[in-house]
Amino acid sequence: MKIREIVLLFKQKMKESAEKKGSNIVLALDQIPNGTGTLVERGIKILEETHPYICAVKLNHHLVLPLGLFDGTKKIVDKAHSLGLPVIMDCKINDIGYTNRVISENYFYAGFDAVIANPFVGWEDGLQPVFEVAEKMSRGVILLVYMSHNAAWEGYGQMVHDPNDNELKAQYRVFAQKALAWNADGAIVGATYPEKIREIRTILKGKVPIYSPGVGAQGGDVKAAAEAGSEYLIIGRSITLAGNPKQAAKSFKDAVKN
Amino acid sequence: MKIREIVLLFKQKMKESAEKKGSNIVLALDQIPNGTGTLVERGIKILEETHPYICAVKLNHHLVLPLGLFDGTKKIVDKAHSLGLPVIMDCKINDIGYTNRVISENYFYAGFDAVIANPFVGWEDGLQPVFEVAEKMSRGVILLVYMSHNAAWEGYGQMVHDPNDNELKAQYRVFAQKALAWNADGAIVGATYPEKIREIRTILKGKVPIYSPGVGAQGGDVKAAAEAGSEYLIIGRSITLAGNPKQAAKSFKDAVKN
Repeated sequence: MKIREIVLLFKQKMKESAEKKGSNIVLALDQIPNGTGTLVERGIKILEETHPYICAVKLNHHLVLPLGLFDGTKKIVDKAHSLGLPVIMDCKINDIGYTNRVISENYFYAGFDAVIANPFVGWEDGLQPVFEVAEKMSRGVILLVYMSHNAAWEGYGQMVHDPNDNELKAQYRVFAQKALAWNADGAIVGATYPEKIREIRTILKGKVPIYSPGVGAQGGDVKAAAEAGSEYLIIGRSITLAGNPKQAAKSFKDAVKN
Repeated sequence: MKIREIVLLFKQKMKESAEKKGSNIVLALDQIPNGTGTLVERGIKILEETHPYICAVKLNHHLVLPLGLFDGTKKIVDKAHSLGLPVIMDCKINDIGYTNRVISENYFYAGFDAVIANPFVGWEDGLQPVFEVAEKMSRGVILLVYMSHNAAWEGYGQMVHDPNDNELKAQYRVFAQKALAWNADGAIVGATYPEKIREIRTILKGKVPIYSPGVGAQGGDVKAAAEAGSEYLIIGRSITLAGNPKQAAKSFKDAVKN
């Protein structure tokens, strides 16, 4: 198994952005059409209002599918970059290697600084090409370790046999070990499960920063997640659907810091 | 757990198409730019050449990302429909429910007849909304059960504890049971693993048809997969990259029938 050399570029970029902004809030710009302005216009408006209080942006298929990758999506990526914000594509890559390579290349060509991938697909002819493309283009790969939704226990929480040490352990522990072994640039652990954040943090040994989605609309508490060890808090609807997104972003930023 | 009523529409559509064409070959139109014509032009040309020998088309991010969903991709979907071919989107959905709903709605709005999803994400706030949207719009959901790539053993092949019967069993057996319980319209099992097709077929009891990718470029044998019990054989590069795609499609069709 060939794994890539340690590349700190994306991790450093995130760290510097968080320090500069004094914020570790990642804005999940998951808008859906609501009849007021186009998705691109609304996305750019929210970025202009919230950028002083966030350190990065995460996009998902909510925007990529209706807007197209090299049309509207790229405009939002470019806008975020012009505001000094790295942009993560939450594509949860989980295909065969040949396809995963094409997917990650496309997102990186469109300007994304990192992609999110599912370690369930494995290494050989699975995520290996994603890590190779990322290394070549100096981008990041963030792995799913424990997701934020109700059914996370079914897959991420199931007990599995680990052939490496012949032990029965939780799936997320296996994934955290892979994130460490594969030199991932981040690990996703739902803010809705602070006890999992704490447990996974001990496996990652401070080498792979934790990103926690699920704050607000999904019920996760930003302060509890940060105290449990999340480096970055991903917040979507609680900011994008707020009456005042700017104030909402600022409140989340302050809640973590105080 | 509320699961949807049995809806046979997509399954029936596939069955009728296969009978009409006398073929159970699903063309995976996974093209990448090669300098000769646009992706849309080439895609439509391949469909015109191969449609008498195939029963359906499967698209993936190879086309959706560069072309956009409602621009180029929809043209290919419409062309396939005009030739009487159902179209499957191989998006391997594996996000939280809120996002999965948006993803499947977008693909169905663009005309796709079915989406592929990963049961690893679980039911509640996971794939439940995908099945709900599919039922409402009379479309299909096909679940990944065992993928075709080398590292499939890492996730799909791992031994897991099944809380339903307190047994340790292969992950793909748990997924096959979910495909049956959730009334999925199909199950993906790699043609590269005919022994798995045979084993999974016994779990699915003939109620969920098996779709097998991995034929040709990935090393799977079309006849072996069909004999093991695959209802549909998914073939991509061995047709799209062939000197004569029409002849290649015809050969695969004949290989299964003889």
